Amino acid sequence: MPELRKDPIVQRWVVMAPDRAKRPSDVKDDPKLVEGEFDPFAEGNEAATPPEIMAYRNYGSQPNGPGWRVRVVPNKFPALQIEGNLEKRGDGIYDMMNGIGAHEVIIECPHGETNMSRLSVDNIREVLWVYHDRLVDLKRDRRLVHALIFKNKGALAGASLQHSHSQLMATSVVPITIYEEINGALEFFNYRGRSIFDDMIQQELAHGKRVVLDTPNFVVFCPFASRFPFETWILPKQQSSHFENITRQAIEELGTVLKTVLRKLELALDDPPYNYVIHTAPFNQPELPHFLWHMELFPRITRVAGFEWGSGFYINPVLPEEAAAFLREVDLD
Amino acid sequence: MPELRKDPIVQRWVVMAPDRAKRPSDVKDDPKLVEGEFDPFAEGNEAATPPEIMAYRNYGSQPNGPGWRVRVVPNKFPALQIEGNLEKRGDGIYDMMNGIGAHEVIIECPHGETNMSRLSVDNIREVLWVYHDRLVDLKRDRRLVHALIFKNKGALAGASLQHSHSQLMATSVVPITIYEEINGALEFFNYRGRSIFDDMIQQELAHGKRVVLDTPNFVVFCPFASRFPFETWILPKQQSSHFENITRQAIEELGTVLKTVLRKLELALDDPPYNYVIHTAPFNQPELPHFLWHMELFPRITRVAGFEWGSGFYINPVLPEEAAAFLREVDLD
Repeated sequence: MPELRKDPIVQRWVVMAPDRAKRPSDVKDDPKLVEGEFDPFAEGNEAATPPEIMAYRNYGSQPNGPGWRVRVVPNKFPALQIEGNLEKRGDGIYDMMNGIGAHEVIIECPHGETNMSRLSVDNIREVLWVYHDRLVDLKRDRRLVHALIFKNKGALAGASLQHSHSQLMATSVVPITIYEEINGALEFFNYRGRSIFDDMIQQELAHGKRVVLDTPNFVVFCPFASRFPFETWILPKQQSSHFENITRQAIEELGTVLKTVLRKLELALDDPPYNYVIHTAPFNQPELPHFLWHMELFPRITRVAGFEWGSGFYINPVLPEEAAAFLREVDLD
Repeated sequence: MPELRKDPIVQRWVVMAPDRAKRPSDVKDDPKLVEGEFDPFAEGNEAATPPEIMAYRNYGSQPNGPGWRVRVVPNKFPALQIEGNLEKRGDGIYDMMNGIGAHEVIIECPHGETNMSRLSVDNIREVLWVYHDRLVDLKRDRRLVHALIFKNKGALAGASLQHSHSQLMATSVVPITIYEEINGALEFFNYRGRSIFDDMIQQELAHGKRVVLDTPNFVVFCPFASRFPFETWILPKQQSSHFENITRQAIEELGTVLKTVLRKLELALDDPPYNYVIHTAPFNQPELPHFLWHMELFPRITRVAGFEWGSGFYINPVLPEEAAAFLREVDLD
């Protein structure tokens, strides 16, 4: 079973998943994706994945058969394991627990499409509904405190299959990035009495120079301190710390916004590899007035090297103001 | 001039260096290194680099000519600029300062060697002395508070030239990783009255299972919560928070230790791309009893994808106990 270990200095958790590599020489990176290969995510190939956790299905279709629109299955090579009791223990100065958690794959469409941006808006909305439904379901599991939804598009962004998909990792500890964001936002809230996210949205909309899109319920901008060229955030305008509390109207709109942003990034950067993540508050927290769920998208077009790994400092060769201007001007036919 | 910007939520600084890319399409990644190309770092090609900052030279040789053993030059495409006054300003909720700092390249040998491990031990010791001398020099610049020494080996680790070299980035703010390490170590010190590094060294030496090398002044181990397969740390046994206070005897020994560790990693993993960094305390801090300077080495053989970027959680498919056992057994002829 995988194991979670905590770094005793910076309190960062690491998942030790030795079953994912049989021997040290197996861990070599292979960033190639092969076109025209067997697609285990395609409709009709349901037997190639573990049995489905859920699917949006056409009337009369059967689980693990064709007739679905969006389908969720366990990751075939999970980093965490869903069965078992949570066991925590120590070893001298070190802390660890067994690797309980969920590692799921959201197959976004039945046909072999590689780019989420080319799915219909209705299809993208259903993907967002699946995110919602999975969070609502996993939240009931008292062993789990958080879930990260993320997408790896393209080999350089960590994808090993081309068929459009995203993933979900639910964990028994709060990831350090989420912890630090919530803590940083809380400090601001305690000091200023306002949400840093509110202030950010107001300042971005007032200045306009980093804004990519402004819709009734969402604002999309390239953040002031972007780590990566063309890093782009999608923030809801209405205060909500938990993605799973999203309204139907907001999901409808987010579907359109997400499709537009992805399409703009693809046209601007010639179909780049990219990641996106949804940052949402832990399951075991009530609505937090200082935190706002949001999506962060980052094309993977620059290398991260020793300086960034060693310092947490990023070097970004493209000003967010320029990236935003470029994205605003991208014409979607 | 480059600009430093602070993320208002997590307080992480980012270097905006738009001069490093002329237009957005220039930032595409190209991980290829070309063999047999012109080597701007080779002896005789000194004119291909900016004028040298320092060099260890043979008697009678002239600056910026041949006859050197280790040579330091400004990075030709610096992320920071050394000239100018430090200017800090705000814009609403955002903080920024101009990008004052040093970005230097340490050319480790005059001949076209790609692997530091194949340099003589004396050569490696001189590289370490150069690290020392540069820190001592830069420390006198009151605008600068920290310097990170790092190495990118191989294109997948971010190197754009093959000739064995490392880099130094001196900054006007403390990088967040250093800040968090020192803070985490201080909390432990305040709570337990001991250095977490001391405790770690004692526990590692007592257990032995993660130890790769144990010499009179250094211990090398794969850390308990390794983020990456074969991540390896080199720690001095004698308390010292600042690398630049290293003794002559320790440098002599570190040269041998570093050569051995690099050689073992290369043999174990078939000449992998890798990074190393030296974590040392800020210039403007006195000796800190809770912090220990150290080296972190990480082969770049796994991909970092959306989950890691989004959560700060790492998935490591190789247990450090197995990596250490493997490295211990690697036979160096």
